[in-house]
Amino acid sequence: MTPYRHTVQYYETDKMGITHHSNYIRFMEEARIDFLRRIGWPFDEMEQQGVISPVVDVSCAYKKTTTFADEIEITVRVAEVTKVRFAMEYTMTVRDTVVCTAKSSHCFTSAGGRPVSIEKQCPGFYAALREQCC
Amino acid sequence: MTPYRHTVQYYETDKMGITHHSNYIRFMEEARIDFLRRIGWPFDEMEQQGVISPVVDVSCAYKKTTTFADEIEITVRVAEVTKVRFAMEYTMTVRDTVVCTAKSSHCFTSAGGRPVSIEKQCPGFYAALREQCC
Amino acid sequence: MTPYRHTVQYYETDKMGITHHSNYIRFMEEARIDFLRRIGWPFDEMEQQGVISPVVDVSCAYKKTTTFADEIEITVRVAEVTKVRFAMEYTMTVRDTVVCTAKSSHCFTSAGGRPVSIEKQCPGFYAALREQCC
Amino acid sequence: MTPYRHTVQYYETDKMGITHHSNYIRFMEEARIDFLRRIGWPFDEMEQQGVISPVVDVSCAYKKTTTFADEIEITVRVAEVTKVRFAMEYTMTVRDTVVCTAKSSHCFTSAGGRPVSIEKQCPGFYAALREQCC
Repeated sequence: MTPYRHTVQYYETDKMGITHHSNYIRFMEEARIDFLRRIGWPFDEMEQQGVISPVVDVSCAYKKTTTFADEIEITVRVAEVTKVRFAMEYTMTVRDTVVCTAKSSHCFTSAGGRPVSIEKQCPGFYAALREQCC
Repeated sequence: MTPYRHTVQYYETDKMGITHHSNYIRFMEEARIDFLRRIGWPFDEMEQQGVISPVVDVSCAYKKTTTFADEIEITVRVAEVTKVRFAMEYTMTVRDTVVCTAKSSHCFTSAGGRPVSIEKQCPGFYAALREQCC
Repeated sequence: MTPYRHTVQYYETDKMGITHHSNYIRFMEEARIDFLRRIGWPFDEMEQQGVISPVVDVSCAYKKTTTFADEIEITVRVAEVTKVRFAMEYTMTVRDTVVCTAKSSHCFTSAGGRPVSIEKQCPGFYAALREQCC
Repeated sequence: MTPYRHTVQYYETDKMGITHHSNYIRFMEEARIDFLRRIGWPFDEMEQQGVISPVVDVSCAYKKTTTFADEIEITVRVAEVTKVRFAMEYTMTVRDTVVCTAKSSHCFTSAGGRPVSIEKQCPGFYAALREQCC
């Protein structure tokens, strides 16, 4: 799968002249949603089915700074899948140099916030994630 | 009424070293919500009653730049009230110097997006706005 | 010139379920910077030459709401050019329906904040803008 | 030391109806800058002395969702200090319930991006951090 691309916007920089570190959490979300869409599970369709996928935790290690107009390539992989949780890993590069590595974990809940089993609620999604998991 | 205060955060600056201009639209929202709360109409209670208040238009004139740690004082006034619309004006100052003047217009809709008459749907709110209108 | 495209991100929505209105100011910046790059005047090169282009004012009229995953097409035109100022107009559409129209004005300053004549400081940029102006 | 307070803004929510998870990284920054200011080391003064403090890594565990108008109390502690690095821990609560726990690590660099020893470059800051470290 080709990496997801995010071009750093002017409004994403800060007065240090670099991309503000909080934005990488947003780039992770962009890449994750794009990945899920590409394996056949667009986020908005899942929401329409009453299933939401809150973020349980994130971590982000900043290796190099980036700035306005940099094109960040984000490679995503499924790192772990259980019946109630999945984890993803992200590698972000600019011109083949790693600028950030990151992880996120996610559970599944009903629209009302009740935790649900991914395997039971969305067996197709569970299977697709497991197939991607390495 | 005392002005609303917003202290500029680091993440609100950009690589010019100043507060990014898009954030003033957010400061307007903060001050407007605070104002409505103070005249007895908290935004979240109105939403719980199924009434939302979309922004119809905004304009913003940037007079002076601001930056990290500046304390912006925002004075709000109700500029216009009709049965289906109201407008607000904002004056933002830092240490008594005007840094930005702005306007916004708002209508009222049901949760489903249907326009509603403020006068009919929320007579108390309509009266409160008219009382504030100068 | 083909329109600039911005796909609405999840983090750009708010609890009304729609794209938060402040983000359109950011979409304007994205489209403007893309436009200037395409007419040969990339923003970062101008900054490296010590010229910055602060926003003097913006206005935005919201016609229809947009939401997560919508692809917004933004057409930009140069509405006015003088020796010290230029203005741009933006039309944003989703699936050929206008969702927002907007304007912005800009001046030019040195890195230190002193206003400069676009015509004198950047004659090539001034000529390029005038050529685009309709 | 009293906790830092952040009231969740409307523009910080997303279409799930909750505070978007990326914003907690920003709340951490707000609380950290406030803490450093209160122990006598305001961020902007350090920057004026040519010392910047990039974020090396962050992690965030989301325990409970929060939403518009919630007042988040953020308690900060210095978890580790070495000559070239320090780490901070954050506990965020709403009405005495923990909603998020987080960590961040930071190094120090010159304005040009060269790593510097905190102990050598800012002995007073180094001493103040060590005094707070538990």
